[in-house]
Amino acid sequence: MFFHRQVLQYKATPEKPDAVYARKLQEVIGGQYGEITVAMQYSFQAWNAHMPGKYRDLLFATAAEEFGHVEMLATMVAQLLEKAPVGITEDAIQKDPTVAAIIGGTDVQEAIAAGAGARPVDSNGNPWNAGYVTASGNLLADFTSNVNAEMQGRIQVARLYHMTDDPGVRDLLSFLLARDTMHQNQWLAAARELQEEGNESVPVPSNFPIKKEHREVSYQAINFSNGAAMGQGSWASGPTPDGLGEFTYIDTPPEGVPMPPPTHPDARFYGT
Amino acid sequence: MFFHRQVLQYKATPEKPDAVYARKLQEVIGGQYGEITVAMQYSFQAWNAHMPGKYRDLLFATAAEEFGHVEMLATMVAQLLEKAPVGITEDAIQKDPTVAAIIGGTDVQEAIAAGAGARPVDSNGNPWNAGYVTASGNLLADFTSNVNAEMQGRIQVARLYHMTDDPGVRDLLSFLLARDTMHQNQWLAAARELQEEGNESVPVPSNFPIKKEHREVSYQAINFSNGAAMGQGSWASGPTPDGLGEFTYIDTPPEGVPMPPPTHPDARFYGT
Amino acid sequence: MFFHRQVLQYKATPEKPDAVYARKLQEVIGGQYGEITVAMQYSFQAWNAHMPGKYRDLLFATAAEEFGHVEMLATMVAQLLEKAPVGITEDAIQKDPTVAAIIGGTDVQEAIAAGAGARPVDSNGNPWNAGYVTASGNLLADFTSNVNAEMQGRIQVARLYHMTDDPGVRDLLSFLLARDTMHQNQWLAAARELQEEGNESVPVPSNFPIKKEHREVSYQAINFSNGAAMGQGSWASGPTPDGLGEFTYIDTPPEGVPMPPPTHPDARFYGT
Amino acid sequence: MFFHRQVLQYKATPEKPDAVYARKLQEVIGGQYGEITVAMQYSFQAWNAHMPGKYRDLLFATAAEEFGHVEMLATMVAQLLEKAPVGITEDAIQKDPTVAAIIGGTDVQEAIAAGAGARPVDSNGNPWNAGYVTASGNLLADFTSNVNAEMQGRIQVARLYHMTDDPGVRDLLSFLLARDTMHQNQWLAAARELQEEGNESVPVPSNFPIKKEHREVSYQAINFSNGAAMGQGSWASGPTPDGLGEFTYIDTPPEGVPMPPPTHPDARFYGT
Amino acid sequence: MFFHRQVLQYKATPEKPDAVYARKLQEVIGGQYGEITVAMQYSFQAWNAHMPGKYRDLLFATAAEEFGHVEMLATMVAQLLEKAPVGITEDAIQKDPTVAAIIGGTDVQEAIAAGAGARPVDSNGNPWNAGYVTASGNLLADFTSNVNAEMQGRIQVARLYHMTDDPGVRDLLSFLLARDTMHQNQWLAAARELQEEGNESVPVPSNFPIKKEHREVSYQAINFSNGAAMGQGSWASGPTPDGLGEFTYIDTPPEGVPMPPPTHPDARFYGT
Amino acid sequence: MFFHRQVLQYKATPEKPDAVYARKLQEVIGGQYGEITVAMQYSFQAWNAHMPGKYRDLLFATAAEEFGHVEMLATMVAQLLEKAPVGITEDAIQKDPTVAAIIGGTDVQEAIAAGAGARPVDSNGNPWNAGYVTASGNLLADFTSNVNAEMQGRIQVARLYHMTDDPGVRDLLSFLLARDTMHQNQWLAAARELQEEGNESVPVPSNFPIKKEHREVSYQAINFSNGAAMGQGSWASGPTPDGLGEFTYIDTPPEGVPMPPPTHPDARFYGT
Ligand SMILES: [Ca+2]
Ligand SMILES: [Ca+2]
Ligand SMILES: [Ca+2]
Ligand SMILES: [Ca+2]
Ligand SMILES: [Ca+2]
Ligand SMILES: [Ca+2]
Repeated sequence: MFFHRQVLQYKATPEKPDAVYARKLQEVIGGQYGEITVAMQYSFQAWNAHMPGKYRDLLFATAAEEFGHVEMLATMVAQLLEKAPVGITEDAIQKDPTVAAIIGGTDVQEAIAAGAGARPVDSNGNPWNAGYVTASGNLLADFTSNVNAEMQGRIQVARLYHMTDDPGVRDLLSFLLARDTMHQNQWLAAARELQEEGNESVPVPSNFPIKKEHREVSYQAINFSNGAAMGQGSWASGPTPDGLGEFTYIDTPPEGVPMPPPTHPDARFYGT
Repeated sequence: MFFHRQVLQYKATPEKPDAVYARKLQEVIGGQYGEITVAMQYSFQAWNAHMPGKYRDLLFATAAEEFGHVEMLATMVAQLLEKAPVGITEDAIQKDPTVAAIIGGTDVQEAIAAGAGARPVDSNGNPWNAGYVTASGNLLADFTSNVNAEMQGRIQVARLYHMTDDPGVRDLLSFLLARDTMHQNQWLAAARELQEEGNESVPVPSNFPIKKEHREVSYQAINFSNGAAMGQGSWASGPTPDGLGEFTYIDTPPEGVPMPPPTHPDARFYGT
Repeated sequence: MFFHRQVLQYKATPEKPDAVYARKLQEVIGGQYGEITVAMQYSFQAWNAHMPGKYRDLLFATAAEEFGHVEMLATMVAQLLEKAPVGITEDAIQKDPTVAAIIGGTDVQEAIAAGAGARPVDSNGNPWNAGYVTASGNLLADFTSNVNAEMQGRIQVARLYHMTDDPGVRDLLSFLLARDTMHQNQWLAAARELQEEGNESVPVPSNFPIKKEHREVSYQAINFSNGAAMGQGSWASGPTPDGLGEFTYIDTPPEGVPMPPPTHPDARFYGT
Repeated sequence: MFFHRQVLQYKATPEKPDAVYARKLQEVIGGQYGEITVAMQYSFQAWNAHMPGKYRDLLFATAAEEFGHVEMLATMVAQLLEKAPVGITEDAIQKDPTVAAIIGGTDVQEAIAAGAGARPVDSNGNPWNAGYVTASGNLLADFTSNVNAEMQGRIQVARLYHMTDDPGVRDLLSFLLARDTMHQNQWLAAARELQEEGNESVPVPSNFPIKKEHREVSYQAINFSNGAAMGQGSWASGPTPDGLGEFTYIDTPPEGVPMPPPTHPDARFYGT
Repeated sequence: MFFHRQVLQYKATPEKPDAVYARKLQEVIGGQYGEITVAMQYSFQAWNAHMPGKYRDLLFATAAEEFGHVEMLATMVAQLLEKAPVGITEDAIQKDPTVAAIIGGTDVQEAIAAGAGARPVDSNGNPWNAGYVTASGNLLADFTSNVNAEMQGRIQVARLYHMTDDPGVRDLLSFLLARDTMHQNQWLAAARELQEEGNESVPVPSNFPIKKEHREVSYQAINFSNGAAMGQGSWASGPTPDGLGEFTYIDTPPEGVPMPPPTHPDARFYGT
Repeated sequence: MFFHRQVLQYKATPEKPDAVYARKLQEVIGGQYGEITVAMQYSFQAWNAHMPGKYRDLLFATAAEEFGHVEMLATMVAQLLEKAPVGITEDAIQKDPTVAAIIGGTDVQEAIAAGAGARPVDSNGNPWNAGYVTASGNLLADFTSNVNAEMQGRIQVARLYHMTDDPGVRDLLSFLLARDTMHQNQWLAAARELQEEGNESVPVPSNFPIKKEHREVSYQAINFSNGAAMGQGSWASGPTPDGLGEFTYIDTPPEGVPMPPPTHPDARFYGT
């Protein structure tokens, strides 16, 4: 069960309205790596978890916090839009270049569809969709996905930080950046702990009988391009991170095998 | 520039057709973590890379290989569909339960739209879309995304391995599993190397001035649920993976701050 | 069968071109509540209707009118775009702030893809999709959906009215506003008539055996947030609109029941 | 802020697994009218609300409950999938027709992507997307949208009730049906109260200066089809629900006005 | 303006219900090349047309017919679903393999969401979307798109013809096949006439100053693969269809030019 | 197999950055008719081809070239974005109208999500999706689709040519225009050759037994609108392009047939 309390985790009030910035902030609400994504992702990972206890508890705890992040950002967006002009006259444009900037820079659906409100979309107006969510039932893979999500999210917030001078907005972003720092660290710690406790290891899934894979190509760095430096990385020689082999470097891909002949399905498929 | 050679990296021929399995295999062609995703993701990461040299070379090399994986799987799907029946009579269903199974188990668009061919869609027929792609310009974040993609992909191939008995299909999957093993290891090695060389570190992005974030909440594990075990993980106490702090555990979230008052936009937005 | 006549229901000619406004108008062509949505929604409701006669006749009649509304708006958009500049020089921007405004404010695909024409997309360029359509086979539910669609649509047109000074555009919007007024009234009348004639009633679907639902929670207003005023509404006490009960107010949600233990699927799913 | 408690609002345990039914249940998790939609819709309506007090409190309260409904259904789905077979042999199909049924009837991504877990998608595997959400800033319109959502949702749950014999599943559905009954009643009550208190009225938005619309067509039932019964409804004569007019019936649409001439954009758009 | 008449262009009644086939028929209603696509495509081409007269008249005429095709197919689908079972018992499956077939073969949303009705989706349940529509303002390009659409559509209907034995369904398909034959011929004739009248020619757009393109590569068949037969086609030597050149064959692609150095955007984008 | 070489087919360097134009160029990378579409389309056509030899060789050859076109454009976009400002101050806007133009004219996700890099999306930020791809297994239909794709693509590039003055950008576009010229010619030649060799003919699919279609309507130009000029085209009289009939013109559509009665599905679908 989820409960709501009419407070915010942190203050979310801009110093002044800025409809152009409101659009940009949509990215971290409803974008690929916005707060809706992590809230939904951690929720589904928790619901699909197979081990009770600390990992699942962590997922539930963080999921609920992320819904609160959506709320802070939506609240911020509504305030940034509060003084958004409905219509803009030709005169106003001629007199003030800022007005010209506003015309193209705002999310017109925030005005037309939401009446100066936040929306579950990204900064280009694409509706959030569940194709962004990862919840495989394998926690090492999913925690790695979570580390990535928090990295991407923190990068985006850091970029957004420099796109405004508003102290109120920056203050909220500073809070979110700190929480992203925590969440990066937390998922890294959880992924490490999972492995130390022997729940899972690289290559994921570790309990697939590894002999069934073609081991002769499991550690080959094959250069399908012609970059001369490809062989200089730690992925081209030396022990592999999974501790099970040694990297080798193949500068020219093997010949390959002949393609099978083209198929000939039933004539009533009317192929040529 | 890309060049094509009319061979396959590995043999991709089923022992016999299986239209039901053809549908399942679509997941690793055109699904969220299918081969199209990694091919496109590594390509865009390479095109957006800022450092010449080994990392970019690795991206280009792997991207090109992944397009070849799409090809092997598409070739396999076409063969699995080769004997797919066009129509199925009531009689056939009554006589053979396998026919009944085929009816619902196949991707009907592989028949109706592609004429018994592969399609750039997932196993539920959702068209592949670029919302699956991550290419942020920050390599540590992106390599982490790549590790995740190869983990998720390998899990899916491992599951698919058990959904068929066909030796030809399994042989191809064994090859792909091995390459996923390589790619997991390779991105892990590359992410480690990036950090060792001082290009980037956790929290990503590391060069955002960390003092600007609210450091007092950067390492707090806050329990927004009521799982009793949340405080038992390595994310709740001890040093943080980024080496910059100590985790603390907050069993009950702080009070929060009052919500700002609701907004009052221009009356011509016709809100209530 | 549908027939087309090369006239418009109402005059749709702007006084002068305005490529920025053309983009905004796309919302009511191809947006969630644009004319394509209602045209398609009423059509599918008619095709799926189970009662011949007045309700279905009304659906067919209104559906056909709505396709004509798409046409008026598309015609308007093409004219608003007629003088849209192909390219814009740096000089032009420096000399005239309006030109700067145009750059970001227009739908670039109206230019690049449609050659200064209307498109079946919304004001952010999202293609119209059938996920907007509701046609359940239950007319009371669907007429309620229609009332909502006409309310949302009229709100959007009203907002758009204030975003232009062009008398020609406003004249068309005034016509569309009036038809939205009609359609709001019409679906309200039809929903009322359906109930008066005993075809359906609240709670929809009324012929589901109501004893099979957990009646003890059918009229409880449960406060899953902490808003103090929640209990002050007519939904918290007094008779219910369906005439079958009395509202009660539950300020603190019941304890809930324990979660079932996590699942343990087959090991070959490679969960953790 | 949102908080999570590791209990369910109601018991959600099936008597036995049923992977085919698990797929169907996805509709009310991640479909157009599933629980994710209402949870997100009520949340955004609350965040965009302009009046503090009872209406907003109701939105917050109900939003949080709906997230708990997603959770109950996801929990149920995971259990229905718990014994889902990974692979199915030809032998098994030949021996048991139920096995044949399972092959096509299950959501293959629940297996391949989620490892026998719930997903934020509908029963055809379409990812949930925010194009389903309505939050206009106008509460009468939005409450009408909510009434519709609860009607559509209850219809779908009622249909699903008959698609299973499992007492555990039916028990949960009985609970959800009751809550849908409550929510239909609650939004109807709230919509009525909004009007009684003078916050808004039909036609929505009521404070758009009604004289600016073309009043001569505001109450005309125009028959753009040829259904003979169209004129028999209460929408064709008598007073209008908004109390502002009288319906009239127009059996044959007016002539219309000439289309404006086709446009001639700049030659560099390369039209014909 | 569009008008509807409550008749069908052709009889659309199946001999008996077939819920499995109803799903397949959705492809030509709401698929990429279904009737909704052509109806919308021809409508937008007409609205964006720049020449009055026969071409635009043809577009309007055909668009309206296509909406009627959607109607015939939707009507057919509803009838195919009329006896669709709501629930299916384990007993029924064990007794009749056809029941097993039905379970997986039907579109479950036709039942759950539409109550045994047609939907604006394809045979995999993907909602129709306007990304399928082409309307560029250039009629030669668009008529070519139309020829393709009618070819693809006719292929799909031909395939569907063999997926049923129902004489009523086949009769309707026979009608649609004939109309597709007409429409293929019609757009071919129109494309030819456009060129004969000098409105447009290959390469489209013909009035782009051809000297501005790099003419040295305008007729080179470059082999980026290694297929030995590539040079044997009429595209590798001889006069070009546009009448402006001679094809040449390049067996090995030119060397190419060096890539520009990677970019170095502002440090505050936090790239690596 | 695909191989990559770190060169470009043609020089792709702008004279100076232009973040506004970078957004526009996204259309031909990730739009409906962008380079990703043709690369993927030709690939899937090749993988689904049934005839070995020249046609398939041509498909493979062109597919690989198109992936290289994606690369040139992505490289160009990254350079156009290289100097894109992160944040823009109010002062800067007031001083320079160009800055105002930039605000709305850029793709904000190129900054926030990609860190000043190219993305697999169109010029309105819609992610590329596989619903754009056509690969039916019938080469005449598919080559016609390819002709259309190259026409639409060349039109878009021609429009884009006039939207910039940058010599470097124009130079690249001149190269792409030439290749589009080639590809239009090539697919036209291939379509002609397919027919001359007797592989396929109009109406596609030609081997569907034509007697099974309702031949009485196969060549009727039926006017479902009221355009007076519809009968003046070559589609209204004279021999048909397929050589199998004569066009006739029907000014008024036939009466049609009665609609079947509405359906009455099982009561447990809760229709009305
Ligand atoms: Ca967060
Ligand atoms: Ca791979
Ligand atoms: Ca309308
Ligand atoms: Ca609910
Ligand atoms: Ca048709
Ligand atoms: Ca190209």
